[in-house]
Amino acid sequence: MVPRYSRPQMTAIWEPEARFRIWFEIEAHATDALADLGVVPQSAAKALWDWWKTQPAIDVPAIDAIEAVTKHDVIAFLTWVAEHVGEEARFMHQGMTSSDVLDTCLNVQLTKAADILLADLDALLAAIRRRAFEHKLTPTIGRSHGIHAEPVTFGLKMAEAYAEFSRCKARLIAARADVATCAISGAVGTFANIDPRVEEHVAAKLGLSVEPVSTQVIPRDRHAMFFATLGVIASSIERLAVEVRHLQRTEVLEAEEYFSPGQKGSSAMPHKRNPVLTENLTGLARVVRSAVVPALENVALWHERDISHSSVERFIGPDATITLDFALARLTGVIDKLLVYPERMMKNMNRMGGLIHSQRVLLALTQAGVSREDSYAMVQRNAMKVWESDGALSLLDLLKADPGVSARLGNAELEALFDLDYHLKHVDTVFARVFGIATA
Amino acid sequence: MVPRYSRPQMTAIWEPEARFRIWFEIEAHATDALADLGVVPQSAAKALWDWWKTQPAIDVPAIDAIEAVTKHDVIAFLTWVAEHVGEEARFMHQGMTSSDVLDTCLNVQLTKAADILLADLDALLAAIRRRAFEHKLTPTIGRSHGIHAEPVTFGLKMAEAYAEFSRCKARLIAARADVATCAISGAVGTFANIDPRVEEHVAAKLGLSVEPVSTQVIPRDRHAMFFATLGVIASSIERLAVEVRHLQRTEVLEAEEYFSPGQKGSSAMPHKRNPVLTENLTGLARVVRSAVVPALENVALWHERDISHSSVERFIGPDATITLDFALARLTGVIDKLLVYPERMMKNMNRMGGLIHSQRVLLALTQAGVSREDSYAMVQRNAMKVWESDGALSLLDLLKADPGVSARLGNAELEALFDLDYHLKHVDTVFARVFGIATA
Amino acid sequence: MVPRYSRPQMTAIWEPEARFRIWFEIEAHATDALADLGVVPQSAAKALWDWWKTQPAIDVPAIDAIEAVTKHDVIAFLTWVAEHVGEEARFMHQGMTSSDVLDTCLNVQLTKAADILLADLDALLAAIRRRAFEHKLTPTIGRSHGIHAEPVTFGLKMAEAYAEFSRCKARLIAARADVATCAISGAVGTFANIDPRVEEHVAAKLGLSVEPVSTQVIPRDRHAMFFATLGVIASSIERLAVEVRHLQRTEVLEAEEYFSPGQKGSSAMPHKRNPVLTENLTGLARVVRSAVVPALENVALWHERDISHSSVERFIGPDATITLDFALARLTGVIDKLLVYPERMMKNMNRMGGLIHSQRVLLALTQAGVSREDSYAMVQRNAMKVWESDGALSLLDLLKADPGVSARLGNAELEALFDLDYHLKHVDTVFARVFGIATA
Amino acid sequence: MVPRYSRPQMTAIWEPEARFRIWFEIEAHATDALADLGVVPQSAAKALWDWWKTQPAIDVPAIDAIEAVTKHDVIAFLTWVAEHVGEEARFMHQGMTSSDVLDTCLNVQLTKAADILLADLDALLAAIRRRAFEHKLTPTIGRSHGIHAEPVTFGLKMAEAYAEFSRCKARLIAARADVATCAISGAVGTFANIDPRVEEHVAAKLGLSVEPVSTQVIPRDRHAMFFATLGVIASSIERLAVEVRHLQRTEVLEAEEYFSPGQKGSSAMPHKRNPVLTENLTGLARVVRSAVVPALENVALWHERDISHSSVERFIGPDATITLDFALARLTGVIDKLLVYPERMMKNMNRMGGLIHSQRVLLALTQAGVSREDSYAMVQRNAMKVWESDGALSLLDLLKADPGVSARLGNAELEALFDLDYHLKHVDTVFARVFGIATA
Repeated sequence: MVPRYSRPQMTAIWEPEARFRIWFEIEAHATDALADLGVVPQSAAKALWDWWKTQPAIDVPAIDAIEAVTKHDVIAFLTWVAEHVGEEARFMHQGMTSSDVLDTCLNVQLTKAADILLADLDALLAAIRRRAFEHKLTPTIGRSHGIHAEPVTFGLKMAEAYAEFSRCKARLIAARADVATCAISGAVGTFANIDPRVEEHVAAKLGLSVEPVSTQVIPRDRHAMFFATLGVIASSIERLAVEVRHLQRTEVLEAEEYFSPGQKGSSAMPHKRNPVLTENLTGLARVVRSAVVPALENVALWHERDISHSSVERFIGPDATITLDFALARLTGVIDKLLVYPERMMKNMNRMGGLIHSQRVLLALTQAGVSREDSYAMVQRNAMKVWESDGALSLLDLLKADPGVSARLGNAELEALFDLDYHLKHVDTVFARVFGIATA
Repeated sequence: MVPRYSRPQMTAIWEPEARFRIWFEIEAHATDALADLGVVPQSAAKALWDWWKTQPAIDVPAIDAIEAVTKHDVIAFLTWVAEHVGEEARFMHQGMTSSDVLDTCLNVQLTKAADILLADLDALLAAIRRRAFEHKLTPTIGRSHGIHAEPVTFGLKMAEAYAEFSRCKARLIAARADVATCAISGAVGTFANIDPRVEEHVAAKLGLSVEPVSTQVIPRDRHAMFFATLGVIASSIERLAVEVRHLQRTEVLEAEEYFSPGQKGSSAMPHKRNPVLTENLTGLARVVRSAVVPALENVALWHERDISHSSVERFIGPDATITLDFALARLTGVIDKLLVYPERMMKNMNRMGGLIHSQRVLLALTQAGVSREDSYAMVQRNAMKVWESDGALSLLDLLKADPGVSARLGNAELEALFDLDYHLKHVDTVFARVFGIATA
Repeated sequence: MVPRYSRPQMTAIWEPEARFRIWFEIEAHATDALADLGVVPQSAAKALWDWWKTQPAIDVPAIDAIEAVTKHDVIAFLTWVAEHVGEEARFMHQGMTSSDVLDTCLNVQLTKAADILLADLDALLAAIRRRAFEHKLTPTIGRSHGIHAEPVTFGLKMAEAYAEFSRCKARLIAARADVATCAISGAVGTFANIDPRVEEHVAAKLGLSVEPVSTQVIPRDRHAMFFATLGVIASSIERLAVEVRHLQRTEVLEAEEYFSPGQKGSSAMPHKRNPVLTENLTGLARVVRSAVVPALENVALWHERDISHSSVERFIGPDATITLDFALARLTGVIDKLLVYPERMMKNMNRMGGLIHSQRVLLALTQAGVSREDSYAMVQRNAMKVWESDGALSLLDLLKADPGVSARLGNAELEALFDLDYHLKHVDTVFARVFGIATA
Repeated sequence: MVPRYSRPQMTAIWEPEARFRIWFEIEAHATDALADLGVVPQSAAKALWDWWKTQPAIDVPAIDAIEAVTKHDVIAFLTWVAEHVGEEARFMHQGMTSSDVLDTCLNVQLTKAADILLADLDALLAAIRRRAFEHKLTPTIGRSHGIHAEPVTFGLKMAEAYAEFSRCKARLIAARADVATCAISGAVGTFANIDPRVEEHVAAKLGLSVEPVSTQVIPRDRHAMFFATLGVIASSIERLAVEVRHLQRTEVLEAEEYFSPGQKGSSAMPHKRNPVLTENLTGLARVVRSAVVPALENVALWHERDISHSSVERFIGPDATITLDFALARLTGVIDKLLVYPERMMKNMNRMGGLIHSQRVLLALTQAGVSREDSYAMVQRNAMKVWESDGALSLLDLLKADPGVSARLGNAELEALFDLDYHLKHVDTVFARVFGIATA
């Protein structure tokens, strides 16, 4: 975790105190169930919760100090709790293993993290949606291979992003379900020393599903899927970030990351307004993605369990979720406040002297009875002049003045072929598909 | 694609002929829709299908020869079709771009591949299920960290694998839906020159969904999710393969990959029966996983499209699906025919002189009123002797002979504590969770 | 391997016939050494080489047919050789294992591949060098964050690429040495049945080093380093490819991939000249990089050997080397024939009305005794006007007309500050560092 | 960075204070050079160093507070220094950009990190070497595919590791050189406002090479190579860690991670001594490797620079070096104190009743004039009995009793074939190759 790329709510999930609170809840709920089953006295469960109601501070250094002696984190925690709860605490953890606590806790943390990320996605989707409808009909050039192709609208770009992040949300919901399980199954997962009903009770209390079959550990294919999904979301962030970076290039400048009126772009060069937020998002996407491969490598644990996954998860658990949370929020801010320059979009689109309409003229000539070969030759001889003039000449003017063309298509017909609206006529269709409605 | 790791049905999907057949269907269905909309004559669509009904051979070298001239694969194909269909073929592809054909075709290929993989998973699940019930109560030692822990059953190992591959199946179904889309939206995806109803028609005919918003290309987050899912499945394959490799080690030998009675293990050493299939699966898992990162890197295409994804997909499309298909089938064979040695499992489990029951004796002493500290000391002084004898001594015998222990627990009581069934009492619970029923 | 991204010389290395030829040489050289040591008759070695001198065709299908029976590739090959050489062939392979042949062969293939790649790098370096000196003093705007910064030259861009690929070459030379080893050490690598002098002889004949300690297999950290190095080279290819893609954007158009005068950019749109080669290179870089992680995962083989690396290498061995060879050659072609547009570079550089010189004016005012704060304000008030005019106004003109500025700096002084050469004065220094000489 | 997997010396490199100290040195050395060139007064450089000699504490919170206002880390630092040094500080940083400071600092940090890692490797090599000579002739079974093959020695295993980590050291030395460069070249790297001699001076003072051509940033192929090398080293760590994990398995138990006599393996089960350190190393190897792909993705920065690499390096810079340092030290401890059980090795080796010598008997029969087919049959009929007895029968006894065998090979001859030393006769050769000497 790098502090400058983190936000407090997500970071809090991964702090030692938060982890210990989850551990307590797992232990206390389990003790409740054990008491109901008659395995331990009801007084034991009561003692735990009574203490908890006093809202005790979690003394992390004290627990760490015990761990330094016991070399075992869960035992250290239980010892510390026992110091405060007293004699009754000895009934805690009966028949359980450390993995029951650790793995269930990790899944609680990941589902909490997923909830924040889902809220992040909702905020991002709201921002994208607003900008989409705002610029639904703002024309801009569509580019393939970085080269002008034909007109689109800025709203369509946003609609694409909206659809993409909607898919990301659906995937994250599925990934959250994948890790939302609870295992309280004892050594090697056989329930030899703990009744499966304890697991059911704790799972219900924590809002988790029961892990159908655990082997002391919760199987890591679940976590692999979770982190792979975060990697896909990060890649979608990168895509939109790269779009902004391209649009802000000096020669393009169709949109810019926001900066306040009085802000200095650079101490020396007033023309410098750099897309540093989206460049940063490009890097953060790489960071989040880097969790995917180790998560995949974590799946093949040996036999009923080995502990090799643990160190990996101490890194990627916090890093991937905290960084993705930060990145989603940053992207939301970028989109929300993005400076959009419709005039520049129009200017760029027109910089090629109308060449972007050449395909439509070609089709019109064909429909007017000219052979495809002749049509192509007619358009090309004029288009090439425009191209060579770097857009100083107008394709429309040249076509009007070309006898071969004008014999087939009158000026009014030609002008109609240069109509932008032709390209925008199905924007409503796309918006209806993406947003459910065509007009906000 | 490496021939020795491929099977014909999956390989066929990726052969040029198969691709051209899909291209034809996309074009012909689109022509149908264009004819219904009055954009092209009904005779054009009819001419295409009439020719198709003759079941023409796809002359791949002829198409390649045209491509060598046109430098464009889709134009080469259309030209070749036109040579056979005649004049009416000129109405094909009207208002479409190559991407409409290429991207929709890729998604048809991926969904076909997914269907094979789903069938593979069903076969694997069936094999695992059969072995699970066969060995539901075959005791074997559970191992954590490669070290004996407490008893499980071989059926439980299979149940875990069954649950894991069931999850993989659900994930693949979701991933298949992610790539099961069709885009026929023309240049930069605006439908300027093609009616969205054409897309709807083609999608319906091909069993795909309509891509809500394409930008000439189908967004690559879909494919990233698909390949990431294949990577997770590959990792689960690795897990089960590694389990078999461990079980087949000379010192363990609780299970073995099948080999026929007359088969030679090695030309020189009769004791060599190597787990080469599962070692191979471990390697193939790495191969499939290697598709994940480039698929993620493919997401951030520039603006409405760039072509950088294409070369990547020419590798990972066939390689990941063909290799995973082969690996799933190989794993199915391994599990189906796995030689399982219950006697050896029992022998291994008992090689530590009953130490695996030490925890239960400890609990029993505690319940008999001995303090935890004293209980631990009593068990440990005997356990250590067993440990030092490398299992030659019996923990049960030593405990019976220990006055401190025998004062609290009689011989019958002690013997009961060494009961394997204690560890197996919840196998039914787990089987009911995993398979829906506890007994096949 | 995807045929369209392959070249024959590199592909030939990985064809079965080439592999069998290397196998033969390993076996025959080993037989020579065994004969010299008196382990086998000299006639055995002679028989092998006599047959080889007849330049026998390698009958791959025949060998495959034998393998289909023996299930063992090396035995199949030895059998086929014996069928042609006769009785004397039985002395071949004495004391050796299949791994001796397979691993040494792989390293021969990788070193041959490295030699081709090194030649590729030389060709690329030559092309870059030529363009570097050609455009050593062609001014172009330097861009940070995609935003105009200060002038550089196109030659400097090439010099950077030259330095980068020179480093790549040095790395590849090191990586080649890492895999240029020979192991002929028998089962588990102990030389129990084969004298180490055989290994020394074969290594010398094949131009390889002796593997100091093998464990039946050659350790895979060597190959991991090799493929990691290919991944770094691929990333450098991506960097230069992305540079070209940016320069070819419609709004920038400072350079373009070559296309012949009569070539059609697009059948419909004459303005479309897409940087498809460099987009392709971007994708191929992802493909080559995807070999790195599985190569790293191949290192941790179990004990003296397992076979999990083998399937991985059947993919990444050919794929990574063939694709990188193709990519280097393609990039060489792109650079060699790149259309470079100095006028457009100048036009783009000047499109901001001289703002790129603002920093130097600021420094000059400071040196003329104005406080830094006042200097900044003076420059900024004029720069902002230029910025708002989108470069229609000239910063130089405005500064001349600004009384505060002109009081300190005369017109001639101001004009001198707008001198491009100021930025180019150390191009010679850089060229001397990179190329050893400043002028070609 | 995860505290429990970190060591103070390496962590210190990445702390803010250390970074600021390096920044100061870069700035102060540059000021020296600028003074020598007459660009700034000598008093400016003197003032900086005079203050530095007072060993001022670096007030990180104060600098952070300034950054919170300036939004620029280098400016914040310079401001803080100026507050302490006074007026003369304004000459600092003249003609430089932030990248000059940041990139040179990163390379100083990476070379310092490399120096620690090189020392770590030396310590590891020393430990491995010691154990290698200690167990140079300790026989143990060599395993291929996890199956007993033929004898090796534990010293040979160590020799292999020694050779592998020696290669890692050589690679790290090369990778260190790759990042040991200094760039002080100003905006877009042209030296327009700073003389190249400043760079030369600073480089010399910091023990770095001059970056031949920078583009404001130091090219990231250097760092990609560095992190790729760390990934290879991590994979070699994994290999040795996996070896220990295998050897410690209950059924194998030929070696164990150290635990002190009084230590508790588990609170409940005295037979539990888990290889948790090497399992941890397996996970940490995944963590270090995860830095490789993002480092490769960082290479293709846009034009003269973008900032996307920066966030990635804030993670992988500390994480990869700190984790690798910790892992190397942990592995050194594991090897240094590894409990090695030669008796158990011998017991395991002999558990197959002498089958491991079957190949040699086969060869001896052949040399005694029996056809290969008959020899094989003779050996096999006896070997199979041994195999079926699970090693209870002795191959040597059976062969002596087999008339067909004893007709050719007398008892003494047969006994000689079961001689372990036959397999160990070239251990000296290997040791001489690896360590330079055969006997320590």
